[in-house]
Amino acid sequence: MTELRETVESYWAAAEARHWLAFGDTLAEDVLFDLPQTRERIRGRKRFVQFNCEYPGDWHIRVHRLIADDASGQVVTWSHATVGFEQKYAVTFFTGDEEGRIASITEFWPEAYEPPPGREHLVERY
Amino acid sequence: MTELRETVESYWAAAEARHWLAFGDTLAEDVLFDLPQTRERIRGRKRFVQFNCEYPGDWHIRVHRLIADDASGQVVTWSHATVGFEQKYAVTFFTGDEEGRIASITEFWPEAYEPPPGREHLVERY
Repeated sequence: MTELRETVESYWAAAEARHWLAFGDTLAEDVLFDLPQTRERIRGRKRFVQFNCEYPGDWHIRVHRLIADDASGQVVTWSHATVGFEQKYAVTFFTGDEEGRIASITEFWPEAYEPPPGREHLVERY
Repeated sequence: MTELRETVESYWAAAEARHWLAFGDTLAEDVLFDLPQTRERIRGRKRFVQFNCEYPGDWHIRVHRLIADDASGQVVTWSHATVGFEQKYAVTFFTGDEEGRIASITEFWPEAYEPPPGREHLVERY
């Protein structure tokens, strides 16, 4: 059995390389992909591969940190994405099935914002 | 030595209970707290406890998922926060020191947004 950690590494490498067959191989047939910020859900490998394949722009993803919990079969990645000149963060929660394929993905895209006033005495900006 | 997983559980329980002494005990003296979305950083236990203690509003945090990578000493939590009637997500990356205290925290607060057009044929809304 492949560890979910390795599956997730293959998932990101295949996405970055646009190797859609290899990408699909990392996914369970009935994979669920959720975007809680927009309340969007994609059901199934076929639709989810198409979603990635059709995603517009010259995007690139670099995994900054990967945390794997072997006991519970969960992996999280913190990635840096670029779309043209735009830079974004992505945080992705994976669960696996019994074959070590990806069973569910929940992804967050936190955006930059200005801090609220009142805490300048405690923080520095970088 | 306390596992970082247990330290993080104590961290959230103490925050929710406003037990600031217990909260401070989970933190390394020179803990670093980063908010990449606002590019804010807080250095040190004293300032970070004060930041939490002074944080405005009747906020509550419930951990929805906790992923612990014992090999690399990292923990991630996905939490549901409420501030009055407002509901938000928080994703928090922790690293630990040799005593099992929290050495660094990086926190994301992804906000709701409307999905871009062009993918309605693949997604459903929930």
